Amino acid sequence: MLSPQITSTFHVHSGQSHLKWSKAIAPVLTVDSNEVVTFDTIDGSNGQITPSSTVEDVLSFKAELADPLFGPVYVRGAEPGDTLEIEVLELKTADWGWTAIIPGFGLLTDEFPEPQLKIWKLDPNDSSATFKEGIRIPTHPFLGVMGVAPGEGEFPTIPPLDTGGNIDTRHIIAGTKLFLPVKAPGALFSCGDGHAAQGDGEVCGTAIETPMQVKLRLTVRKDMKWVSSPNYSSPSSALTLAEDRGYYAVLGIDSDLLEAARKAVRGIIEYMMQTKSLSRVEAYMLASVSISLRVSEVVNVPNYAISASIPLNIFTQAS
Amino acid sequence: MLSPQITSTFHVHSGQSHLKWSKAIAPVLTVDSNEVVTFDTIDGSNGQITPSSTVEDVLSFKAELADPLFGPVYVRGAEPGDTLEIEVLELKTADWGWTAIIPGFGLLTDEFPEPQLKIWKLDPNDSSATFKEGIRIPTHPFLGVMGVAPGEGEFPTIPPLDTGGNIDTRHIIAGTKLFLPVKAPGALFSCGDGHAAQGDGEVCGTAIETPMQVKLRLTVRKDMKWVSSPNYSSPSSALTLAEDRGYYAVLGIDSDLLEAARKAVRGIIEYMMQTKSLSRVEAYMLASVSISLRVSEVVNVPNYAISASIPLNIFTQAS
Repeated sequence: MLSPQITSTFHVHSGQSHLKWSKAIAPVLTVDSNEVVTFDTIDGSNGQITPSSTVEDVLSFKAELADPLFGPVYVRGAEPGDTLEIEVLELKTADWGWTAIIPGFGLLTDEFPEPQLKIWKLDPNDSSATFKEGIRIPTHPFLGVMGVAPGEGEFPTIPPLDTGGNIDTRHIIAGTKLFLPVKAPGALFSCGDGHAAQGDGEVCGTAIETPMQVKLRLTVRKDMKWVSSPNYSSPSSALTLAEDRGYYAVLGIDSDLLEAARKAVRGIIEYMMQTKSLSRVEAYMLASVSISLRVSEVVNVPNYAISASIPLNIFTQAS
Repeated sequence: MLSPQITSTFHVHSGQSHLKWSKAIAPVLTVDSNEVVTFDTIDGSNGQITPSSTVEDVLSFKAELADPLFGPVYVRGAEPGDTLEIEVLELKTADWGWTAIIPGFGLLTDEFPEPQLKIWKLDPNDSSATFKEGIRIPTHPFLGVMGVAPGEGEFPTIPPLDTGGNIDTRHIIAGTKLFLPVKAPGALFSCGDGHAAQGDGEVCGTAIETPMQVKLRLTVRKDMKWVSSPNYSSPSSALTLAEDRGYYAVLGIDSDLLEAARKAVRGIIEYMMQTKSLSRVEAYMLASVSISLRVSEVVNVPNYAISASIPLNIFTQAS
């Protein structure tokens, strides 16, 4: 973690949100290149889930309100063809979070038709969070959503675009830089969807969702002409997510890469049910907040292989 | 690396190969459960590529001879419904290897129609191999192919099956255990396709291919009833592939997961061309032997995101 003393005179407040990606949305703030901006973000449910929520709130969840975007911020000097660098300086979660299975959403949605909700307690001084007795998830806060305005058109917030948005990429933690292709004058950067932890794929459809206060440095780059989709860089192995105590993995093999992913996730769920006394719902949620999901081979036609692995350090009791 | 003094009285020789997965193929060896077997494997080209090969040999490459399987080994007590555990004890590469672009094969085959060949020098006492001046690839030997006989039918060696085979999973290095579902009496285990190093996906279609001598312990497991596709476990973070000095990543975003993978790989190739003075062919080969390929999100319909990242430690000269 970086020092919490990063100064920032620019602030986007939690009321300054919008629900579409469009260059027609007026900026809430204008800054010079290389300035630090603090964002106070509401969680991805846009306040529909609270610490006292029950599964009833998942049933009445309105997807059209989800993933609110905080901003946009106009960065002086950013022109179409440039790249916006977003240096992630600091990410501070709230003291609670949530993970849900929302009907109609998630990689295995056909197999999990019932709504489910887990409220987490988060301690900013603790680098892990308790799922249940004997299972603790290492936290690694990041923003699910960071994006700039697209060149033309108006887009909903849930699908990611080449200009970023809901990329849900767990590796873009503090210390990492994200690079996005600028399509509109000023770039018009927005962010949101704080996650305290997430597995690759976000397979059940949600991570450990949490309100988050974030400090980001926004810099116009004229020298990165190859950036045409989100790029990111990590300066150090210290930012590699730990898999100490090893892992267990299941391969999904199929001629369709998405189906291979589904098989791999189904397999790791089955492994956790058989060996860790978890229900199928618990195992699916746990996969969503902690697995690695790798494309193991994508050339041995007609069959591809995806590997879902669970780090064994989350199981604090030997079984 | 484990001690090279592992004793093994059972040996599968390089002449003991076959070219189909089928339970009709007679075993070349019968062992008790928990025995160590040494395999002398020829490379995945089945000797079609040699240290003195040129690109002409790639042009005349016969795919029907590729990925020879060494074995099968009959393991006493293994019955359909059991699991075969393969503990990877030791993997010794030859002093050379090869990487090729074979027309018609590879994730971006439509964009790379010309045959290409790179012969590598491998030093068993060195944990990396030189690609060209200023670029060294950390080696992490593993077998691309490990499998047991399928229940019914006869299958070619290139596509992987639920009973394993050409899974090309770079994480199954020495110290790892692979678990395969037994479908035929004796399991009928075979292996081959030695790789000195490979990236996730093996995107150009080949890794650092090399003949390999391998020691594996084969054990019948009656207690792992959930294994219905290849599973594997790693006991320790020491077996995590290093990404020290950080990495650079590109996201591919598309409504088709395979196309997202293609975009991500295209993007990381472009990054290397722009920043590392590599040709497109060099960058594609380098991706094939070193990238991580992760499914970043697979739920934000209709757009999925795959992340291709290159470890920066392979570039020994700052650029």
